Parts: sequence; C-alpha cells; structure tokens
Amino acid sequence: MITPLLNEDEIDFKGLERLVDHVVEGGVHGIFILGTTGESTSLPYPLRHRLVEETCNLVKKRIPILVGITDTAVSESLKLAQTAQYSGASALVAAPPYYFSLGQPELIEYYEYLADRLPLPLFLYNMPSHTKINIEPETVKKLSKHENIIGLKDSSGNTAYFNKLLFHMKDDPDFSLFVGPEEIMAETVLLGGHGGVNGGANMFPELYVELYNAAVAGDIEKVRELHNLVLNISAGLYSLGQFGSSYLKGLKCALSLMGICNDYMSSPLHKFKKEEKNRLALNLKEIQKKIQKNKTLKQHKPH
Amino acid sequence: MITPLLNEDEIDFKGLERLVDHVVEGGVHGIFILGTTGESTSLPYPLRHRLVEETCNLVKKRIPILVGITDTAVSESLKLAQTAQYSGASALVAAPPYYFSLGQPELIEYYEYLADRLPLPLFLYNMPSHTKINIEPETVKKLSKHENIIGLKDSSGNTAYFNKLLFHMKDDPDFSLFVGPEEIMAETVLLGGHGGVNGGANMFPELYVELYNAAVAGDIEKVRELHNLVLNISAGLYSLGQFGSSYLKGLKCALSLMGICNDYMSSPLHKFKKEEKNRLALNLKEIQKKIQKNKTLKQHKPH
Amino acid sequence: MITPLLNEDEIDFKGLERLVDHVVEGGVHGIFILGTTGESTSLPYPLRHRLVEETCNLVKKRIPILVGITDTAVSESLKLAQTAQYSGASALVAAPPYYFSLGQPELIEYYEYLADRLPLPLFLYNMPSHTKINIEPETVKKLSKHENIIGLKDSSGNTAYFNKLLFHMKDDPDFSLFVGPEEIMAETVLLGGHGGVNGGANMFPELYVELYNAAVAGDIEKVRELHNLVLNISAGLYSLGQFGSSYLKGLKCALSLMGICNDYMSSPLHKFKKEEKNRLALNLKEIQKKIQKNKTLKQHKPH
Amino acid sequence: MITPLLNEDEIDFKGLERLVDHVVEGGVHGIFILGTTGESTSLPYPLRHRLVEETCNLVKKRIPILVGITDTAVSESLKLAQTAQYSGASALVAAPPYYFSLGQPELIEYYEYLADRLPLPLFLYNMPSHTKINIEPETVKKLSKHENIIGLKDSSGNTAYFNKLLFHMKDDPDFSLFVGPEEIMAETVLLGGHGGVNGGANMFPELYVELYNAAVAGDIEKVRELHNLVLNISAGLYSLGQFGSSYLKGLKCALSLMGICNDYMSSPLHKFKKEEKNRLALNLKEIQKKIQKNKTLKQHKPH
Repeated sequence: MITPLLNEDEIDFKGLERLVDHVVEGGVHGIFILGTTGESTSLPYPLRHRLVEETCNLVKKRIPILVGITDTAVSESLKLAQTAQYSGASALVAAPPYYFSLGQPELIEYYEYLADRLPLPLFLYNMPSHTKINIEPETVKKLSKHENIIGLKDSSGNTAYFNKLLFHMKDDPDFSLFVGPEEIMAETVLLGGHGGVNGGANMFPELYVELYNAAVAGDIEKVRELHNLVLNISAGLYSLGQFGSSYLKGLKCALSLMGICNDYMSSPLHKFKKEEKNRLALNLKEIQKKIQKNKTLKQHKPH
Repeated sequence: MITPLLNEDEIDFKGLERLVDHVVEGGVHGIFILGTTGESTSLPYPLRHRLVEETCNLVKKRIPILVGITDTAVSESLKLAQTAQYSGASALVAAPPYYFSLGQPELIEYYEYLADRLPLPLFLYNMPSHTKINIEPETVKKLSKHENIIGLKDSSGNTAYFNKLLFHMKDDPDFSLFVGPEEIMAETVLLGGHGGVNGGANMFPELYVELYNAAVAGDIEKVRELHNLVLNISAGLYSLGQFGSSYLKGLKCALSLMGICNDYMSSPLHKFKKEEKNRLALNLKEIQKKIQKNKTLKQHKPH
Repeated sequence: MITPLLNEDEIDFKGLERLVDHVVEGGVHGIFILGTTGESTSLPYPLRHRLVEETCNLVKKRIPILVGITDTAVSESLKLAQTAQYSGASALVAAPPYYFSLGQPELIEYYEYLADRLPLPLFLYNMPSHTKINIEPETVKKLSKHENIIGLKDSSGNTAYFNKLLFHMKDDPDFSLFVGPEEIMAETVLLGGHGGVNGGANMFPELYVELYNAAVAGDIEKVRELHNLVLNISAGLYSLGQFGSSYLKGLKCALSLMGICNDYMSSPLHKFKKEEKNRLALNLKEIQKKIQKNKTLKQHKPH
Repeated sequence: MITPLLNEDEIDFKGLERLVDHVVEGGVHGIFILGTTGESTSLPYPLRHRLVEETCNLVKKRIPILVGITDTAVSESLKLAQTAQYSGASALVAAPPYYFSLGQPELIEYYEYLADRLPLPLFLYNMPSHTKINIEPETVKKLSKHENIIGLKDSSGNTAYFNKLLFHMKDDPDFSLFVGPEEIMAETVLLGGHGGVNGGANMFPELYVELYNAAVAGDIEKVRELHNLVLNISAGLYSLGQFGSSYLKGLKCALSLMGICNDYMSSPLHKFKKEEKNRLALNLKEIQKKIQKNKTLKQHKPH
C-alpha cells in the first residue's frame, strides 16, 4: 500500500480511509504498509508509527496487516514492531539494513538478532537494487529455521532466483514466498509461488485478486487475459518518468486522478508535473475502459 | 549447445557428433552454438570457424542452426557470420560488445552497423551480467524495425523485464523472444514467450521439448511436473562450485559422465576436480531416475 | 569520530569524554560526528541527538564540530540539524539519501530542498559505495552556488574524480574539498585538497595533523615518512576481517585496546571476536612503536 | 598509445609513423600499444598483429615497447605474445579475461597458466570498470612470485587501492606499479608509484615526462604547476561527450586536429561529430597556449 500524504509531515487521513476501504472491499487478502511503495524510508518516524495505528484502526481486523520495519537502526525497527503489535497488526517485514554493505554471515546474524526480539512473526524482504545485497537461497534456508521468520517477499524481479527459492524451500510449505513486481505475479503463482505483494492493487484490487485466483486454479486462459491487463498498467502508468522512481510516481498520480488520495510524494521523490500527469490521465482512462470491458472482472465487481 | 573440447585448441569431434545426434534426436527445434554456454569468447578464432562448419555438416539441415558471433571486434563478428552463411546456418546471435561500457544510443548504432553487413538474420542477445549493459525495451523496439534483426534471447533472468519486452513487441508477433535460464522457460512460454535456449537440453533434450510443448498447450499440470524436474537439475547439477561458472562446469561434467563428450573447459574456466565430480555423479543418477520414472517422458523416449 | 557505545541503546559517556579530549589535545582542526565511521545510520534517533549535545558540551567550542545528518527521511535530517544548531555545532554534513536510486536532477532537488531549510551551513558527502550514487562534478558545481552549501567530503577513494572536483571548483576557493580515506589524504592535500576527515585520527590525532601540515607545506620528505605510517595503520588495523566493515571494526577494537573507549558496535556490525582482537593487539603494538620512534612526532607529543 | 586507423580494417600507417616519432622524441620512457586507449579489443586480429610489427619497426629499439595481449581467449593472447616477441617488443600487458565473471582463485589460475607460456615478461592490468573484477592486493602479491610477472598497471582510479598495493609490495621494489589515469599520476609518483601510462602523452609527451620527473624529484612546486595543466587537458578534452568513451573520442579528435593522425574510431565507438569537434578545437588551442607559456616546458622543447 502507498502512504497517502498531505505534505512532508502529515498523513492524508481521508485519503487513507478511502484507500483502505477501496482495497479491502476489492478483496485483497492482506495489506502491507511501510514498504518501498509506502515510501517508508522517506517518512519521519512519528508519522510511521501513526500510520500503523491508523491503518489498523481503519482495517478493523477485516484482513491481516503486515508492517514494514526495514531500517538501518535495529532499535528503530524494534520500536516500530512494538507499535505494530499493540495496534493489532499480524506480521512484520524487514529488508536488510541498507547503508553498510554486509556479507551473508553478517546478514544472518542481523536477522537472527532482530527476530529474537520481535513480538510478531517476520517476513524477509529481498530488494537487492535498493539494499545492495541479495538474500541468497542458502541464507533463506538457514533463517527459515528461526521460529519467528515465516516467509519472504522477493522484489528482485529475478524469477530464476525465485524459482530456486521455491525449490529450496519445497519441504517447508508453511514458509511463504511472495513476489513484489506485479509483472511476474501470475507466472510465479502458476508454478508454486504463494502470492504477490503488488503496487497495482492500490488502484485495481479486484484485478490482482482475480489474477491470483486464476493462477492458483491453473486457469491459464484467464491468467493470460488478466496478466495482459497488468502489463498494460505497467506500460501505461509506471514508465512515464526518467528515473527508477517512475513506478511510484505513476502509481500515486493515478490514485489521485481516481479521487482516492493526494499524490504528494515525500522527499527525495517528487510527484509528476503537469505534463506527465496529463499523459498519465489519458493512459489511465484507456486502462479503465479495458478493465471494465473484461467480463470476468465485471461479474466480480458490482459496485 | 556446449562446445566439446579435447584441450585449449582442439574440438572433441567424436563428442560433437554424439552430442549433435543426441539433441537432434531428442527433438530440439534448433541449435545455438557459440553462445555463453558454448564458451565462445574463450575459444581461439580458427576453432570457432571450424566448429561452425563441422556442426553444420553434422546437423545436415535437420534443424536450424543459430551461430553466436558476439565479439568486441565487429570485423571478427562479420567474418564468423560469413562462415556461418556458407556453412548453411540459419541465423546469427550477438550480445553487445562487452569491453567498453556503452550507452543505449551507442548500442543502437553498433547493432545497426552490424546488421547492415550481415548475410543472415540476427537475434539480439541480452546478457547484462556479462556485458555490463541491458538492452532496454525501447532499444529493442527500435532495432526490431531493422529487416535483419528478427528476435532476442534474454539471459538476464529478470522476467519482469522479459514480460515488458513481450508487451512492447506484442504488435510484432514475428519478432521472436526467447529466454536463456531454463528455470524460467516454462512460465515465460505459458505467458507468451516464444521458447527457451536452455543449457540443460544438452543433457535431456526430450524433457525441455516436452516442457515447452506443455507450456504452449497451457497444460499446467504437466508444466508443473516437468518444471520441477528442471529445478532438480538446476539445484543438483549447476550449484556445486563456488563461482558464477558452476552452471557451465556442472553441465560439461554431467555430459562427460553420460558418455557424450569430454569435459575439458577452456581457460579461464576449469573443469571440476574429483570431489565435485563425485558429488555431481550421485546427483546425476538420482535425476536420471526421476526422469525415467516420469510417464510422459517415457512415452516420448523409446531409445 | 567513532561513536563510543555501551550497547545498542547507550552511549559510553566516559569513553566519549576521553576520546574527545584525546583528539582535541592531539590537535585536530575539527570533529565530524555521526558519519559512516560514527555508525550514524545504525544508531537509534534519541541517541543521535544525545550524542550531538554531549559532544558539543565536551568540546566546549575549542574546535568546530560538524554533525552528520544523512538520512533517507529529510524530516529527520532537519530535526537533527536543529539539535546541532542549538548545541553549538558549526556545520552539517549530508550524504545522498541511500534507499531509492536517484538521478542527478533528483539529487540536486533534494539537496536544494534540504539546504533551504538548514540553520547551519552544509557539506555534501560523496559516498557512492554506500549510497549507490556519485555526486557528479557538474552537480557539485551547481549546488556550490547555494549559499548554505560550503563544501564536500569525498569518500569514494577515487582520486581521479577528486582531482576533477578540485579543478572544477578552482575559481571558488572557499568551497572546501576534503577526502575521507586516510590512504589518500597526503597526496590530495599536496595537490590542492583542503584536508582529510580520517578515521585513524581517532587513535593518533598528532600523526594525521602532522601529515596534513607537511602536505600543506609541500615538505615531501616528511610527507613520505608519515604517509608510510598511515599505510602501516591501514594494513595492520583495518584489514583483519572478511567484509567491508573491517576498517570500522579494527578502529573500534584498537581504541578499546588503547583504553580510550568501549568497542561495542551497533547492529548490523559486530565487534571483533577474540582471535582477531589478539592479532590486532600485536599489530597495534608494533605500529605504536614505529610512531614513537618517529622524531617529528615525538617532539610534538610530550604526553 | 592510441591506434591510428583509416577505417574498420586498416591502420593509418603514416599517422602511426608521425605518432611514434612524436612521442619518442617527446621523451617518453616506453610505449604501451593495444591497451584500452589503443582500442585493442575492437580491432580485427590480423590488424593487431600488424600493429605490433609496424610499431616495433618504427620505434627501432629507441625505447621499450609493451604490448597488450588482453583477450577472453587465452590462445589468442599467446599468439599475440609470439608476434610481440619476434618483433622485438620488451614486455606484455594483460587485463583479466572480461566476459565471464571470475573469482580471485580463478584469476590466479588464469594468470599463472598464461605467464607459464609467455615468451616475454608480463604486467598485470587492473581495469575493473571494464573487466568486472578488481585484482585484489593479495592476488597481486601471490602473482608477483611468478618469475614472468613483473608489474601492474592500475586503471581503477582508486588511489586508496593503489597505495595499498604500493605498501603490500614495498619489499619487492623490482615489481613495477604504474597508474593509468593521468589525473593521478603526479601524486602517486610523489608517494612511491613507479610511473604513469597516460593517454595524454600521445598529444603532449614532454608535459607528462616533465611532470613525472618533477614528481620523482619531489619538486612539489613544479608538480603543482604541471599537474594543473594535466587537469586542464582532462577537463577540456576528455569530457565533451555523454558516455564513458568521451576520453578516448576526445584524445583521437585532438590528435587529428594536431595533424598527427586520423580520428577514425573502431566500432562500437565513433569519432566526434562536427559540433563536438569544434568545441574541442577551441579548448585545444587554449591548452596549447597554456603549455607554450610554461617556462619549464619551453626550455625542454626546442623544436
């Protein structure tokens, strides 16, 4: 989930409420806040804690909430974990600390130190492009023995790596393996992945739920059809800027155009300027038309 | 296809004959020689030319042959292309020049210069881990307009990238998009990819052909079953060394144990020593048993 | 300056006092706290603020204090800047935000946003190995026009880059250019650099001050002699571990052996175990002997 | 030395003769052909051999010639080494093979295999930005024991690394350590480096020789003056293009404007277009004026 903001230091609470209702009613199986898409590392700490509390209040236990506690300072991760626990969240998610460059043994020590002290179960979060380290399959295997470590979200986009993980962990089916990039969710679920944590579900939750269901059911025709819609979204909404942040800028811009929440982006990122916003608005309309034409989705979306 | 070698300067011609027959009879739809798996950049030039001639002689037009002409010196690429053409090969494959770091515009200029002078159609070859440059989707789109450029093989392992390519090129279905890593062949073909150029087919061609067919047919049950065998191969045979070259060392070692060809590896790589060879032999036996047990494959492999 | 710690959440105040006196009496021209060597990104926020206050108290304006405010969340940088200002610090230092990958235009926007809001002048901090971005010479030139941006510390180790910076900025001699790695301080000062921000000065402040003075004076004989001692320190104390963090682990270990402060390291790093500590102790003794033998230094260090 | 070319497959022999005489008369202590600046990896093989023969003919033993034999195929390196030997070259230079990613032990094996078979002594060539591997100080130390390995040229630009090398090898003063980037030649020689292999000496050999001599003599005033001219060259001639290849394009363009040789660049690089050529011509004139004004250099350059 993205983090609706009014400015550098204030949550867009009305937007947050609309967004939470939108995705919960859209049928998603859980919410992950304070991830990369949630701009967590850009937010002031008090705001991070407030967001956890308020999201939990709004969701009212309808679905599980996962809270990102990724930090370079382990003490701050632990404080956020406390807030997550007393607010009623279900689990935590932590990418490797992302300032120092660590070796795999240092990474194992880090995660064990962290997991030993957490009041909720933990998902590992593989995000090598941002953290400069890949959580190697052998490291995952070792960490999966820790009773507090229950899964991994992989945002590397490298499905060869993800398939190796699935194979490595096949004797431990309770260890959950999710992918981040929505462009590969369908295929990984078709071949045994446990789900996707996909930014596009902020906008079109039904689409991603339906695609997930089709993939679990092995309904390859439906998968191909809905997967194609996801690629339309990726091409039309996430690629309009120059830099790596285009995905996030496009997503927040679209949510604002849909009337769901403010498109303010926290420094060091910035929202789209008028020109890109106009181009995105055109693409968004076209995508919305395609989604509405889709029979499968219409039946599932009466409101 | 790997390159069977007796030593730094000699082809293992008997092994080459056995290998060609093995994969052709195993049903593969084409052969790619002088790729990364073929150690092309490590081979002396006369040997590269000789390999092209001899492979074409042995295949006798039963299936198309693609010849890798990747080089930092474009003149050498062009000479190899000539040999490929007069020997009867069908197409060429070229990764970006891999010494200087290029920008995308420089890469476009390079490929246009090359393709203008080629006597056979060309596949682009994306291999960022070795060439230090990713062929961006926009670059592929531009190059696809060139009448001599007919497809791309992607060995990045990044399926998010590959799916974007498929989407970008969807209005040009004659432009072929293949993946290198066998761990992701099934899923990419399920969602519209045109095939795999997979090292494991040197050993077990029927398996990869059958998996490809199942994916094209959308037979998800069979895909899951055979894909799992591929992951067994990847885990058991390609991961026994310390470095990035473990895949190639494992593959050549297995082919030698199967009695197909010599396991000599050209400098700067080296074949496995006894200890790794013994571990690999055990894994290989187990994998062969699993493959033999598989009903689907047995029906297709009477010899 | 390193950050003396008792554990994950407590400053070693006695060690801090000893360390501050040690370096101030050793003649350093300024103190930089909360840099990479200060483990700033690993420390809980309240501790960072406390460290700023306490260091300022202890230094008592004898020399200027520079405070690192590097953060992925700009609001937290601004809060720390406030603390620095009311505590009496002289200037601030900020590396690029290190989670998202930014382009140079985004980096310029970031620094301008930050500098506009700072109560003290700012040094840029180039640290590409940790932040994944190099502050390009053109970017430095643009940012140097901002009245609040007064210099740059370069920890890239790339002197070709640093020399280009010096040349680019030669018409603006008030813009200060410092290097981080002590292995290159002497040579950069010889050729126009303005100084070093060197970790080794925690242990042997006189040595680094004397080396700096010799380099400014162009006394090449003395420079060669003292520079050689610095390389002894680098080889003997900073290279005993396996990972990138060996420098920092070695430095804290040596300070603890010298009786100055605790060697606790904040997660995700960890202090040396016994074996490495013993090896380091031997190397340290030898280096101390060499330093004591050096006539130049003895005259300057009567205590 | 750059490689003067008429087109993709022909040496500019007249330009080569002028260039050789220009640099030999300019006083350089040796010539390195077929390095990165010589576009060696872009040249067809017959041309590489021809260049070695012709350069040796032209130099007529006035100064030593070092021949780059860097290649991904060790057999081709050995053939070029033979040509170097019978043509009368003095030594060979080889960067790591640059297609496969190697580990340090694989790199050691490679260099030992190569050096065992070479008819002339070998310099290692560290060029991590192009070869994807750094030759670690420990690796250099091991390889320096081989009787055929006599030195290293470092083009990393990382002087912290280079200083560590100098320190590591201080007990073996016969092992030569050179740097590539001219922006750091002066300072490394001041502190014990054995020289520079600098592209700018193609244009202004006296300047680089004089700077080297001043650095060896520890004449810091002269060093500062001449070093500043080198930075002028770097800023004015090597930074006019967009990509990493600007240095090489600028160098060849300047040599052509000076009437020394053709500016043809071998694919995948391309010579500057008119606009950049015009800007470079202006900068070149200004630099030539500054060099002529310099008293030290005038005394040494009567012709």
